[in-house]
Amino acid sequence: MAQTRVVVVGGSDAGVMAALWAKATDSSLHVEMVVKDQWVNYSVCGAPMFLGGEVPSVEKLAHRSLSDIEALGIHVHLNTEALAVDGNSQVLHVVHQGVERFVPFDRLVIAQGAQAAVPPLPGRDLPGVFSLHDMEDTVRIDRFIAQYQPQRAVIVGAGYIGLEMADALTHRHMTVTVVERLPQVLPTVDREFAHRLAGHLGAHGVHVMTDTTIERIERAGQGLVLTCHTGERLDADMVMIVVGVRPHASLAQSAGLHVHQGAVVVDERMATNRAHIWAAGDGVITQHQLLGTTYLPLGTTAHKQGRIAGINAAGGQAVFRGVVGTQVVKIFDWVVGRTGLKEEEARKVGFTPLTVESELTDHKVYYPGASPLWIRLTGDQHTRRLLGAQIMGQYGAEVAKRIDLFAIGLMQGALVDDVNDWDLSYTPPVSSPFDPVQMAAQAWQAAWKTQQ
Amino acid sequence: MAQTRVVVVGGSDAGVMAALWAKATDSSLHVEMVVKDQWVNYSVCGAPMFLGGEVPSVEKLAHRSLSDIEALGIHVHLNTEALAVDGNSQVLHVVHQGVERFVPFDRLVIAQGAQAAVPPLPGRDLPGVFSLHDMEDTVRIDRFIAQYQPQRAVIVGAGYIGLEMADALTHRHMTVTVVERLPQVLPTVDREFAHRLAGHLGAHGVHVMTDTTIERIERAGQGLVLTCHTGERLDADMVMIVVGVRPHASLAQSAGLHVHQGAVVVDERMATNRAHIWAAGDGVITQHQLLGTTYLPLGTTAHKQGRIAGINAAGGQAVFRGVVGTQVVKIFDWVVGRTGLKEEEARKVGFTPLTVESELTDHKVYYPGASPLWIRLTGDQHTRRLLGAQIMGQYGAEVAKRIDLFAIGLMQGALVDDVNDWDLSYTPPVSSPFDPVQMAAQAWQAAWKTQQ
Repeated sequence: MAQTRVVVVGGSDAGVMAALWAKATDSSLHVEMVVKDQWVNYSVCGAPMFLGGEVPSVEKLAHRSLSDIEALGIHVHLNTEALAVDGNSQVLHVVHQGVERFVPFDRLVIAQGAQAAVPPLPGRDLPGVFSLHDMEDTVRIDRFIAQYQPQRAVIVGAGYIGLEMADALTHRHMTVTVVERLPQVLPTVDREFAHRLAGHLGAHGVHVMTDTTIERIERAGQGLVLTCHTGERLDADMVMIVVGVRPHASLAQSAGLHVHQGAVVVDERMATNRAHIWAAGDGVITQHQLLGTTYLPLGTTAHKQGRIAGINAAGGQAVFRGVVGTQVVKIFDWVVGRTGLKEEEARKVGFTPLTVESELTDHKVYYPGASPLWIRLTGDQHTRRLLGAQIMGQYGAEVAKRIDLFAIGLMQGALVDDVNDWDLSYTPPVSSPFDPVQMAAQAWQAAWKTQQ
Repeated sequence: MAQTRVVVVGGSDAGVMAALWAKATDSSLHVEMVVKDQWVNYSVCGAPMFLGGEVPSVEKLAHRSLSDIEALGIHVHLNTEALAVDGNSQVLHVVHQGVERFVPFDRLVIAQGAQAAVPPLPGRDLPGVFSLHDMEDTVRIDRFIAQYQPQRAVIVGAGYIGLEMADALTHRHMTVTVVERLPQVLPTVDREFAHRLAGHLGAHGVHVMTDTTIERIERAGQGLVLTCHTGERLDADMVMIVVGVRPHASLAQSAGLHVHQGAVVVDERMATNRAHIWAAGDGVITQHQLLGTTYLPLGTTAHKQGRIAGINAAGGQAVFRGVVGTQVVKIFDWVVGRTGLKEEEARKVGFTPLTVESELTDHKVYYPGASPLWIRLTGDQHTRRLLGAQIMGQYGAEVAKRIDLFAIGLMQGALVDDVNDWDLSYTPPVSSPFDPVQMAAQAWQAAWKTQQ
């Protein structure tokens, strides 16, 4: 009997996970990967750190090398674009160096990812204007900086990548302006945190402009000039447009897959509506435990979904439990984490949120190195259910893992009150007898009581 | 109508929490504290850090000042020893500066704590031989060091305090020997971790002797000499005996409270068998979610139990959910955390444990400052239930909060497999797309599979 052929489209987080876990689940499978470029299994989340000079070479960003993957018996087709899927005859139509061919499959995992969503802004295609979504973008930007030594950068978009790039380009000795259409930076956190973070950006020399829309970009001598909706003009040597992503949809369309807001609809096993086809990663919908079906492309989720898709494509049984919106970012010396719903999101989906902010320290103040930790806790006023948390503090203050405590709490449907019961670890250099997350819960309880 | 009188015996973690939460629950109460010494609400967990010179003065160890507590309307009797309880007439018999008197109460919380358990070792009362349990001990040791400038210290007992003191006295420029009766240091973790930790102690110049019992301590010139069961003799200028604690029992006896292994028996509301009497802290039993009734005195637990006792004594409704044995310690540059059951404990209570150790890094290796993280995961081979976890890594590697993730998992009865579903935060400077705790779970799953 011929080997069962599992074909995976995509060489980033979800694709590699799918291939590795398919092989790990059933080593008798023939597993093939179709990868559009030469970058297999690179950590594109690390691109800003490479561009900022904290990571010495782009090769260091590899999660695994190509030979690591091939050593597991997985066949990788580099620089090969997937053009279409014929779900009936179970073939994938691909092109490599101009030559088209058909790759037969018994089971297909589509992990095509997403692409930068670039608004139809006049001048967006000028030299020196970049988006940042994949490794090709990363290399292009690095080469531009090395060649032209830009002094002034304008970053359009103050989300995670925009702010990480503000940090990175400041480290590369540029004068950086961040322009955001919304009233605040980092729209995934409450305004109060965004305001404090904007102060931190300012302290590092980043010029932040909120409530500002860019109308066009033009050449101006050796450089560029951006015109804001207010008429204000910003000079730049390079521009980055990082305002979000949209899923790749070409393959899904050809295969007749259901899509929702452009993303492939999958069930909890990452199966699509077509037999023998699974999908995972930045090109698919995500189940959010508090919001239902959503589109929330993240590397963590792509890894999980890819693993689930790979296991199931290999005949195993695995279920994706969904997300609660956990994210963290490091901007200069600070780390900002969030999970669940922020105040406004909670209200929008029908909760009656109460949000309480506490200023604490990461460990006992008497032990050297204690630093402030701001915790915002959102709970429902009627049910006391924990709805979300946001934490901001210095790098090294265990912000990320503290957010993760709340993430696990959210996944189990905890009440704010339950946080106090957690048997958390303590020694003065790392915490306090009630951890700051518990003191934040107690502050929420006290505020709730005064409201009654 | 006269104010209802709540009297709390004990001025450390549990006592202060009980008083504060009683008052917070019902501000109309008259709340009084009876404290045996002058040290109200000091963080005795920080004593080794003070003695090591990392905390500049003993006063810094105060969680709160006396005036903070009095400002809340709580009356504090310092240097007042509680001698006996008459549960029928509801009076507490106390002595202050030789004068005995009776303090009436409507509700009593006993938070008397524990005392150092010092084995009946010849020479244990010699000058220069210390135990370390309370602030009086702390001050005594500090004064001795300042006055006599000891050069050589022997520490008997390699538990948390023994190892913290090995670190502390090394910082005070002493040559330190740690002697442990058991075959390993830090008996709360598996042998493999203890062995690695002993290496770290050795690298910092600490001489570790396991499987060694001290038979006697004698004067020798200006110093002391300890004789081991092997006949080996150890010279010392100071000796610390830190081999554990035992609960204070005098008040409990007089009140006719049930005790279990010397500790007061309480229910989940921290109520004793006598009406109007609650108890909390190092003097009471603790419910361990995996072991049942146990005695496990810890500052975190004392805070939680004190809070519960205070709320209930004030007429509120609160329940102590028990512990899962979460603990963490910092020794020199390393942090070691544990929660749940170690391999041997799990076997002893009837599980069929499988323990898998993984060597990972705290964050992506390409980002500066990544450091090794060793994670031991114990799960039941039959049910796949998570039973325990141990983590060791550098200070700053978020060891403590990673252990806490497992602690919450244990409290919800998670399977090892569930760890992979956790929606944890990720950015390259703080983690990896699957957090190290998840990679450890995957290593456990793989090891389990090969065993079938």
